[in-house]
Amino acid sequence: MSFKINDNEVDIVIAALRPDLTIFLEEWRPIFSRFHLIIVKEPDLEADLQIPHGFDHHVYTKSDIERVVGASLIDFSGHSCRYFGYLMSSKKYVISIDEDCLPARNAAGHPIDAVAQHINNLETPATPFYFNTLYDPFREGADFVRGYPFSLRDGVGCVLSSGLWLNVADYDAPTRAVRPNERNARYVDAVMTVPLQSMMPLSGINIGFDREILGPALVPALRLKGEGKQRLETMGDIWCGMCAKTVSDHLRLGVKTGLPYVWRNGSGNAWESLRREWGGVKLMEEIVPFSSR
Amino acid sequence: MSFKINDNEVDIVIAALRPDLTIFLEEWRPIFSRFHLIIVKEPDLEADLQIPHGFDHHVYTKSDIERVVGASLIDFSGHSCRYFGYLMSSKKYVISIDEDCLPARNAAGHPIDAVAQHINNLETPATPFYFNTLYDPFREGADFVRGYPFSLRDGVGCVLSSGLWLNVADYDAPTRAVRPNERNARYVDAVMTVPLQSMMPLSGINIGFDREILGPALVPALRLKGEGKQRLETMGDIWCGMCAKTVSDHLRLGVKTGLPYVWRNGSGNAWESLRREWGGVKLMEEIVPFSSR
Repeated sequence: MSFKINDNEVDIVIAALRPDLTIFLEEWRPIFSRFHLIIVKEPDLEADLQIPHGFDHHVYTKSDIERVVGASLIDFSGHSCRYFGYLMSSKKYVISIDEDCLPARNAAGHPIDAVAQHINNLETPATPFYFNTLYDPFREGADFVRGYPFSLRDGVGCVLSSGLWLNVADYDAPTRAVRPNERNARYVDAVMTVPLQSMMPLSGINIGFDREILGPALVPALRLKGEGKQRLETMGDIWCGMCAKTVSDHLRLGVKTGLPYVWRNGSGNAWESLRREWGGVKLMEEIVPFSSR
Repeated sequence: MSFKINDNEVDIVIAALRPDLTIFLEEWRPIFSRFHLIIVKEPDLEADLQIPHGFDHHVYTKSDIERVVGASLIDFSGHSCRYFGYLMSSKKYVISIDEDCLPARNAAGHPIDAVAQHINNLETPATPFYFNTLYDPFREGADFVRGYPFSLRDGVGCVLSSGLWLNVADYDAPTRAVRPNERNARYVDAVMTVPLQSMMPLSGINIGFDREILGPALVPALRLKGEGKQRLETMGDIWCGMCAKTVSDHLRLGVKTGLPYVWRNGSGNAWESLRREWGGVKLMEEIVPFSSR
């Protein structure tokens, strides 16, 4: 069931919320340079983008958004501008990493290739119908444990790979306000399939997905009243994740979470976000029945 | 929701399939010595048990089994003799570790306290209704990620803790026959709740559970025709696990898997097991609809 994804089947989509992408792209150069990049400039950003030489890339701006979607009610501002990149991609797979994230490093100090790990997660089967206690059975050195039904060992296609974060974890504003100095230092060396009918919070910070299958679920469909531009103030990716998981379950395809990690620097001020009307909390409590059984 | 389990609320149950428990108990002495041990002598074992001094323990033998269950159809031979220990315990919690397992060691060479980890897993809430991508949110340094519904963050009680294995993993006979030299060397530093309605293969090698709630589900109810005494030839624990998970889901309580690891030495000859009628494979394929959705 495993197969090989070629580099030319993958677009890397980057939302440019700040004009200077130099540090971000230089750090990722050894990993990104063999892929085509789609860079979407946040529509309210006025300064010119600074993009170092040597990347095969295409920049989309406010005028492209206006040309393509016109007077749509869909708002591609803030982090949501990345979704315009998903819409413009014609590749089978999309990988997207926030520009406040750098490659995580292994114990020897070498950068971890998050793109290769997302691709590997998408190339190998998922196992949503039965839980394997030794995590990903398709990983080198792992297997299905005793008692795992043989009829389910082929697995099914994986359509979404959700990666994690070292340093600044993706906590909500109240949690960050309560624990301002908490950092995630624990590297859990595992990938697993999120079981069928189990809902998960999907973070859009570090993901890879099968655009042909899941693309239509990953659009900025949910905007909160008074929503800001920081992750702490938005729920777009969380909503997309619930849709994507529901669609994957319906199609009997798989969603994986775990590796790869990226190193995430601080983003957004929790207190500033708390000052805004924090509609996301209330909303999540109303959405939960959508997924509760 | 977290609470404290006292040492006197825990029985450690050991199935003695070999008479000499000296090495096993000496290795576990620093960890086991503060608990009461229930040792069940495999009914067909004739030699006297060798148990080192200094353990608070009670040994149950064939005559106890005959006295208590009489001419029952329930067969407590082989690994199933442990279930008699579960039946005899009057403590709220039971922890059970196979006698071919020794404490795993951390990077510094110190033995890992598997009992303390099982107790911690049972003391802290489980989160079966929604998946948390950063694993156990009640662990020091971890939390619920952005998008996790606040109404579900209290969690529910954990009634079963399923631990893992370093060195010899718990693979079935066909898998071990195909990969005779495969060893599990990967220590995944995580505990997670198995989501609601997700089935799992439960291994009885290294577990802790709430006996008052789950005890009645953990009995040797399933015996295969021509079943042997090695794990490779039995399905009792796998069946119990499916019952226990189904009961936990029904009661809206949680099951965790992951830490603690134990170091497992080889047990059972895969080729010998394959020579027997391997009813478990066929049976699992028939049981799967029990849990498929």
